[in-house]
Amino acid sequence: MNVAASLFDRHRERFEKARETCRTRASWSPFAEQPSLYAGHANARAAGEKAFTAHLGQRFEIDQPSAHAWVGEEVSPYTQEPLKALYPLADLDALFTAASVGIPAWSAVSPEIRAGVLLEVVERIYRERLFELTYAVMHTTGQSFNMAYAGSGVNALDRGIEALVYAMAAMDAVTRDARWERSFGSATIALDKHYRLIPRGVAVCFACASFPTWNAFPSMIASLATGNAVIVKPHPATVLPMAISIEVFRGVLRESGFDPNLVTMAIDTTVDPMGQRIIKHPSCAIVDFTGSARFGQWVEKNAHPALCFTETSGCNAVVIESCVDLDAVIRSLATTLSLFSGQMCTSPQNIYVPAAGVRVGSGDSASVVPFDEVVSRLAKAVEALGNDPKKASMIMAAIQSPSTLDLLNSMKETAEELGALVLAPHAYAHPEFPQARTSTPLMMNVSPSDRALYSSEQFGPISFVIKTTDANDALLQATSDVHEGGGLTAFLYSTDPAYVDKAEDAFARAGSQLTINLTGPMPLNFAAA
Amino acid sequence: MNVAASLFDRHRERFEKARETCRTRASWSPFAEQPSLYAGHANARAAGEKAFTAHLGQRFEIDQPSAHAWVGEEVSPYTQEPLKALYPLADLDALFTAASVGIPAWSAVSPEIRAGVLLEVVERIYRERLFELTYAVMHTTGQSFNMAYAGSGVNALDRGIEALVYAMAAMDAVTRDARWERSFGSATIALDKHYRLIPRGVAVCFACASFPTWNAFPSMIASLATGNAVIVKPHPATVLPMAISIEVFRGVLRESGFDPNLVTMAIDTTVDPMGQRIIKHPSCAIVDFTGSARFGQWVEKNAHPALCFTETSGCNAVVIESCVDLDAVIRSLATTLSLFSGQMCTSPQNIYVPAAGVRVGSGDSASVVPFDEVVSRLAKAVEALGNDPKKASMIMAAIQSPSTLDLLNSMKETAEELGALVLAPHAYAHPEFPQARTSTPLMMNVSPSDRALYSSEQFGPISFVIKTTDANDALLQATSDVHEGGGLTAFLYSTDPAYVDKAEDAFARAGSQLTINLTGPMPLNFAAA
Repeated sequence: MNVAASLFDRHRERFEKARETCRTRASWSPFAEQPSLYAGHANARAAGEKAFTAHLGQRFEIDQPSAHAWVGEEVSPYTQEPLKALYPLADLDALFTAASVGIPAWSAVSPEIRAGVLLEVVERIYRERLFELTYAVMHTTGQSFNMAYAGSGVNALDRGIEALVYAMAAMDAVTRDARWERSFGSATIALDKHYRLIPRGVAVCFACASFPTWNAFPSMIASLATGNAVIVKPHPATVLPMAISIEVFRGVLRESGFDPNLVTMAIDTTVDPMGQRIIKHPSCAIVDFTGSARFGQWVEKNAHPALCFTETSGCNAVVIESCVDLDAVIRSLATTLSLFSGQMCTSPQNIYVPAAGVRVGSGDSASVVPFDEVVSRLAKAVEALGNDPKKASMIMAAIQSPSTLDLLNSMKETAEELGALVLAPHAYAHPEFPQARTSTPLMMNVSPSDRALYSSEQFGPISFVIKTTDANDALLQATSDVHEGGGLTAFLYSTDPAYVDKAEDAFARAGSQLTINLTGPMPLNFAAA
Repeated sequence: MNVAASLFDRHRERFEKARETCRTRASWSPFAEQPSLYAGHANARAAGEKAFTAHLGQRFEIDQPSAHAWVGEEVSPYTQEPLKALYPLADLDALFTAASVGIPAWSAVSPEIRAGVLLEVVERIYRERLFELTYAVMHTTGQSFNMAYAGSGVNALDRGIEALVYAMAAMDAVTRDARWERSFGSATIALDKHYRLIPRGVAVCFACASFPTWNAFPSMIASLATGNAVIVKPHPATVLPMAISIEVFRGVLRESGFDPNLVTMAIDTTVDPMGQRIIKHPSCAIVDFTGSARFGQWVEKNAHPALCFTETSGCNAVVIESCVDLDAVIRSLATTLSLFSGQMCTSPQNIYVPAAGVRVGSGDSASVVPFDEVVSRLAKAVEALGNDPKKASMIMAAIQSPSTLDLLNSMKETAEELGALVLAPHAYAHPEFPQARTSTPLMMNVSPSDRALYSSEQFGPISFVIKTTDANDALLQATSDVHEGGGLTAFLYSTDPAYVDKAEDAFARAGSQLTINLTGPMPLNFAAA
């Protein structure tokens, strides 16, 4: 165990800084947040692309219990060609059994030793596999290179470290040894008490198709830090980023003297999904699910007796009541609506605007911009991005799933029937990948009577400008829709302090994080992360 | 809010000491742990008895939304006469609505203000209502006066303070305000972040028939401390202790300027139980359940989307492998098996003894006491307690429910059919209450082939001495039964350090707290508490 024991020392400083940052909630990452700042960027990027390419058409060997069959159905959203990477199909019982074997030894060592192993995993992914992972994310999810590097690479690793801090804090809160003395009549009873941390068992981590590592890294690290094993179930459309990551976890575990089967992969196929079977497996002790609201609701109802965490739909709201600079607001909104073609759980979908329009400016110079003008200026800003293929490629990137194009088509037809179409979606020509699956955003102009259309998440670049009676109605509609549809984040523009106060309370009760009056170069939804 | 603000200051020292004790896990109570040490004991006891008597045959007024009907079916296990206390039947929807009204104001104040109110509740129950509560517990649960005072009085209050410490720690872990700055290109984005504690809503606390306050106080205090409201659903057989407690919660809330309906009572009847309806109510946000394993399993499966905590069966094990002083072990076991007639969730039920007997003594003077002799000596010790009515009244007290007598009868018949009866239960004559519902313990001598009899909790003074192949088999049987049947605590006697090590690991994996080689005047199951 000497290898493992030295790992925490190696990463102690980073861990302490992470712990401090979790207290202050300041901005910090130990990693280069832009590819160009990565040490030896050009070489690392080229090597990463080469490593990614080497997986194509090949078997991805994982020496875990296998059913000796190989499957793989990934298609690059950029080339629309199959990746032809193949992964070992596993027997579920064998996987759970193998995962359980290493738990006693893994959970018996100190939390620091487990933390050291996990911090080393994070460091290895960053130092040795980051660009390979970036290309794998690009060519499965359709993210842009920069987003795949940052959002699915370094920031996902940041979130892994963050989860480790909270896992360690939870374990630190348990007193290890106590001397307990009390008198009973004339006698004194003295007990030496010892408290143990007991793992729950085998955790199952569902990774989603569009943003797999973002929730998987923290989930895997939290489960492992507390002594559990993890079976990762990637979405069949996005396996490679998880396979690469799992290889690193397994390698570091093995080098540190632990059972690599503490981290395994359960792959399935779209024709034979195993989601329900893996959750109902008698050895499934923890479920971490990221994916659709529909299956997520089944998971929440059926995961018991496993401990269950889900992250599903983001039916996210924007309320525009008033602002100082409408152009700045519209620039920010247009970028954020377009970012990764609305395929993020923090992408805004429903934009509530009072029928009378939006008060713009301050003091005597304030004037009201009518509702229709707000809609048309926002639509024009989004349209301009879509008409600039280079910008569109960096911001909108590609569409992960063909089913999102189907949804865009059917929603467009609905919009036309309703006379509600503000912006029709169309493919844009990606400058680097001419075959890329792309779409500019669809925008509709609706009223609360069309609520059935927007009260749940419409996944993809689809947004609704909703005309409300007045500002109070905007807040009421937005917060009740968020409460029912499951909003993760919300955005408010208002120069009225009383309205802001009311909105803070209302969104807090509705259960959504709220970002107020944010403009500028940062995509709005980064504030939620 | 000035009244409320001063309350935390008043109790700050006690809270700090409790926080320190939760870290050290040492023994501490701010209260007199024996009635005789209570300030002004004689007067307080007499006044408490008088206050209890004043409830009999009367309506217990609670000014909460009521359905204007009065119900009550409590029967004293000591007199077997109905208490004839009546409680307001409530309309469930009206109760949830009323509970919700006060949440915004209650959750908006600082955690310290809520903690001050709750510490004042604890102090008031102790100072003003403790003996009234003690008599109410006695005459509903059948606990002895001393147990009702300590276990259902001061120690339950201790546990309430303990829950408050952990609730405050959880809230302290949330950073309130942060300044977040990051550069995006040439611009720096600065966000002022504010984090809020948001209550879940209305919690439902199920109190059980035999030990209501023990789990209800910590549950109520944890939910309230974190800004929620609580509806208490007492078992219809044991309402008065909760009604008295609820009156204090409501009184202190009202005096402190908060809505008393933050704590209400939902009473039901055995012919028209409301357990399922209250859990499936759309406003039920938290369920804390103490009661039968059977209904508990339904609760665990059906509480979603409410957050759910359950405490159900205690199918608790004793393993006797070897010991220094068998008499001391038998004295402790006999007392613990008899304590409150086995009606505690920490009462031992299954006693695993190797077929070859128990090695007794140390070194060269060690000898083996055969299995049959271990059983007969244990049976004699239990029998002796039952034959001394004064001792029996203090230790065994009374049987809460007539159904426990039915179970004793049917188990006795089964034992006779199997030829497994070691000790037949019989009523003992309570020296103070000649009509008391009492029973000495039933003990059976079985083997693992009779596992169906003892693999789940047989509630009441029922125990099984289980003859196992050898010491390793004893451990294997005990831990697998604990794992499946849901053991809360376990007891081990062994002078073999290697065996003890193995047992520590095995019981930890099985999910049970383990007490090793404890003898002396403290009832064994106090170690689990």
